[in-house]
Amino acid sequence: MKLLEDRILSEGKVLPGGVLKIDGFLNHRLDVELLDSLGKDVAAHFSNQKPDLVLTVEASGIAFAVMVAKYFGCRVLVAKKHRSVNIADDVYTAKAFSFTHKRENTLVVSKEYLQAGMKVLVVDDFLASGSATVALLSILEQAGATPVGIGIAVEKSFQGGREKLESMGLDVYSLARIADMDETGVKFVR
Amino acid sequence: MKLLEDRILSEGKVLPGGVLKIDGFLNHRLDVELLDSLGKDVAAHFSNQKPDLVLTVEASGIAFAVMVAKYFGCRVLVAKKHRSVNIADDVYTAKAFSFTHKRENTLVVSKEYLQAGMKVLVVDDFLASGSATVALLSILEQAGATPVGIGIAVEKSFQGGREKLESMGLDVYSLARIADMDETGVKFVR
Repeated sequence: MKLLEDRILSEGKVLPGGVLKIDGFLNHRLDVELLDSLGKDVAAHFSNQKPDLVLTVEASGIAFAVMVAKYFGCRVLVAKKHRSVNIADDVYTAKAFSFTHKRENTLVVSKEYLQAGMKVLVVDDFLASGSATVALLSILEQAGATPVGIGIAVEKSFQGGREKLESMGLDVYSLARIADMDETGVKFVR
Repeated sequence: MKLLEDRILSEGKVLPGGVLKIDGFLNHRLDVELLDSLGKDVAAHFSNQKPDLVLTVEASGIAFAVMVAKYFGCRVLVAKKHRSVNIADDVYTAKAFSFTHKRENTLVVSKEYLQAGMKVLVVDDFLASGSATVALLSILEQAGATPVGIGIAVEKSFQGGREKLESMGLDVYSLARIADMDETGVKFVR
């Protein structure tokens, strides 16, 4: 998606350690108009799937997921992040490793809000190794819900997440796919 | 706002310890259509203020803040929560005590995204003792930015937050004001 790629090129910075800093529009300061355009594009791609629910992870996936769900007229379910969790009967949990924070989190969702048979679109701001997304898929499997696809704002295509998800038979749709990046700049998959 | 009060009455549960559980539409599962109506109402109330920015706290304030900002055509700045923080030169920080989680967090905002002279609307899903809101106001003061008002979804009017903020001369606008609540139900301020 040219709109997002242009914003990454004009405002993004690559920090040491492979961190792409685009928090000026995506997850610290939020450009609501841009996020609306991203949500519209993802919803158009998955329009045949008619999901019952959009599932994401707090905190940085929320704004993007809300904008996707708006176009489907469905609700968003936000997996909570806990560093440790007392596993209660009424929640589904799965572990995910955060690339940015270099730590493992437990993702938690109330069973009450995720029913067997639901069609669920999984949405997140970043896809790197796919750890968070795989954890969300594990939660869907525990609930007997069906993933209808994966919608991503920015994919780091060199970190293996897409291959992992595609090998599970999933449609991965990313609005910007970064082939390579370093302090001199960002290159997209063509 | 009757729409929100009715949802609290029909779906809310009061848990022991004074916690109002309305996470089925406000902050775990998100009713996007309802949040849009809440955002529109808050924006209408502050329409004369024309804020440059909406400021909130991760994670549960984000969806509501995005919907408010959409009606102003402005951006959202999301204060990050850290349990501890190495205070760097390029951020503003302030401490807040979380009523729900019974712990102190440090709220963090990049200086880059908050300039002196900006008119900022502070938005959050809950107002109780006002600790998080006061921390956000401290960040605005550090930046030399001006708060133009406080927009809240659900106010627990018996916990003192409103009085604290009004004594600072601020316009506090809450969509639902809870006068009292216990296991038998919720009563609103009339």
